[in-house]
Amino acid sequence: MKRDSFLLQHSRRQFIQRSTLGLSALAFGSPLLARSSYIKNSKENKLGIALVGLGNYATNQLAPSLLETEHCYLAGIVTGTKEKEAKWMEQYGIPAGNVYNYENFDEIANNKDIDIVYVVLPNSMHAEYTIRAAKAGKHVICEKPMGLSVKECEAMIAACDANKVKLSIGYRLHFDPYHMEIIKIQKEKPFGAVKYVNAEFGFRIGDPTQWRLRGDLAGGGAIMDVGVYCIQGARYATGEEPIAVTAREFKTDPVKFAEVDETVTWEMEFPSGAIANCTTSYAFSTNRLHLGMEKGTAEVQPSYSYSGLAGHINRKTMSFPKMRQQAAQMDNFAQVIKTGGESEVSGQEGLLDLKVVEAMYKSIKKKGKRVKV
Amino acid sequence: MKRDSFLLQHSRRQFIQRSTLGLSALAFGSPLLARSSYIKNSKENKLGIALVGLGNYATNQLAPSLLETEHCYLAGIVTGTKEKEAKWMEQYGIPAGNVYNYENFDEIANNKDIDIVYVVLPNSMHAEYTIRAAKAGKHVICEKPMGLSVKECEAMIAACDANKVKLSIGYRLHFDPYHMEIIKIQKEKPFGAVKYVNAEFGFRIGDPTQWRLRGDLAGGGAIMDVGVYCIQGARYATGEEPIAVTAREFKTDPVKFAEVDETVTWEMEFPSGAIANCTTSYAFSTNRLHLGMEKGTAEVQPSYSYSGLAGHINRKTMSFPKMRQQAAQMDNFAQVIKTGGESEVSGQEGLLDLKVVEAMYKSIKKKGKRVKV
Repeated sequence: MKRDSFLLQHSRRQFIQRSTLGLSALAFGSPLLARSSYIKNSKENKLGIALVGLGNYATNQLAPSLLETEHCYLAGIVTGTKEKEAKWMEQYGIPAGNVYNYENFDEIANNKDIDIVYVVLPNSMHAEYTIRAAKAGKHVICEKPMGLSVKECEAMIAACDANKVKLSIGYRLHFDPYHMEIIKIQKEKPFGAVKYVNAEFGFRIGDPTQWRLRGDLAGGGAIMDVGVYCIQGARYATGEEPIAVTAREFKTDPVKFAEVDETVTWEMEFPSGAIANCTTSYAFSTNRLHLGMEKGTAEVQPSYSYSGLAGHINRKTMSFPKMRQQAAQMDNFAQVIKTGGESEVSGQEGLLDLKVVEAMYKSIKKKGKRVKV
Repeated sequence: MKRDSFLLQHSRRQFIQRSTLGLSALAFGSPLLARSSYIKNSKENKLGIALVGLGNYATNQLAPSLLETEHCYLAGIVTGTKEKEAKWMEQYGIPAGNVYNYENFDEIANNKDIDIVYVVLPNSMHAEYTIRAAKAGKHVICEKPMGLSVKECEAMIAACDANKVKLSIGYRLHFDPYHMEIIKIQKEKPFGAVKYVNAEFGFRIGDPTQWRLRGDLAGGGAIMDVGVYCIQGARYATGEEPIAVTAREFKTDPVKFAEVDETVTWEMEFPSGAIANCTTSYAFSTNRLHLGMEKGTAEVQPSYSYSGLAGHINRKTMSFPKMRQQAAQMDNFAQVIKTGGESEVSGQEGLLDLKVVEAMYKSIKKKGKRVKV
């Protein structure tokens, strides 16, 4: 067995360090320890994830989260940067056979260690690698935005369906307790219907050479990167699908933002009459999900960060213990695969967001005219 | 002297109670007490204010605030409700000669006790009573919104100029320490320029028979009542005058809001490229002034309440002692009258807000088209 032989290659010291992070004690022949840790920590019980694209998010969020997951683990990597291979193999105990590049990616089909492919590439590559992973018979997690268009999203869903693999989008906030509370309030309506959502996510983007500022790779600017959190937020805070949007773009730095949108404000209209007023930007910080309900307010602020979220319901502080959103997200998907059913952040969720994105860009072109979704 | 004779009518017990609230000890012949309290508490040193319209705001905010003011005091009332007269005379020690109704209002010109007329009437009566007060030679504080149109505001300013009286608008937040801090940040720019403002003020309006829901009396709905706080906020948070607006109205209760706007979202564009995204509503609660700056954020939330404000600058909590915004506002105006100069919340401020309001209603009519201010 590849996994066991790999474990045996490790020193005892390395094992002790790593066993607290979720690896099995089985290989070391301690039946008592083995039994309890088998249930919780054994790789045998976990699905193997391969990260495709080892940028900042994979490096600093997903890989560390995979040391905390109970139902999946970091089994492989796909990278175009040769130097990263040895470092990741060493750091995460990844065997050479589970390391791929963009040329031999499709051979992943033959690797039984890899159950799930997590696509963490620039936006323009999401559709291609999701479809190739599906064809390789792997379940897929694709980062947001799901694709550059509704058409791409449809092709991604079709490929996963045709290959009988599951697809989920990296919507980590569905597994964050603050946002789960918002979803609960929307569903149970203890304070009446949600009449209004203010969703804002902006930050001041740095390095002008990064792919997020290139139209061909990002397919859009702030909207595609952080605006989708607001679209998502407005959708789960109301529990409704928008029927129309109006959107306007504002640009103060036409050089830096020559190819992508800098700041966009937009409204979303929902069938019940609820509305959302939203802002996204690469030029300034704002980070809020606010609900105006019939009998009060609820708010998460900061709302979309990886940690440090805070919130209140009718001015009473919401407070939840620290957790890793990405670990909860990936564990949920692994469980869905194990037990059947559909991810609550399925490809359909990503597609619905892209429908809004497309309507927003249409409205921007028409100078803020109302566009039906 | 009217004031002294009035004082002498009061019992000693009443005097002691009231002297702590700002009345003179002079009339009782204690030279030592008299000297110190003369400086701080004597009516002799204070300007007399007459409240015109004894509704909720005058009753529960302005009159109690006038017990704390150092430079002005409640000298008179103007009311159309006979039953209120005795109650207010008793509660605030107002002599019968300083009580007016809407028929004999103009006789206030002959009353030396009254230096300032504070117009707290429904919006549609602001212009008329401001102009009549000016013609009576009285300085004027007019509640927001200043008038129903730019034209009304211009006429009000002209009347005050022609009669050589000062005019200020009831913009209490200019004297609240949280908002003063926002204005300071905007001016001193310790975190760079302000790039973005989110200003939202909404509440769920009750009684469907109130004047605020009548087009003829209110001249508009949420915009006129609480939206002006957002316009003000965006203007002082950027320190700029908007060059264009886009606005959209949303109505979920066409019966209750048959005559006035229910919910409006709008953007304001400023010459520097800064933008504001705003929401006002009579259908739900929201209460926030947020600044996205080059190097951080600042926020007051709740922002527009009479008390209980809270805020942060780059996530550090802002905290100021309790105070009465209205007392500070009226004292400031009294000092401006005493020492000369112009109120920082002059008629010009009100007029500039009404320019934005008019542009917003134009944009709403044109379904969100960009309208130059």
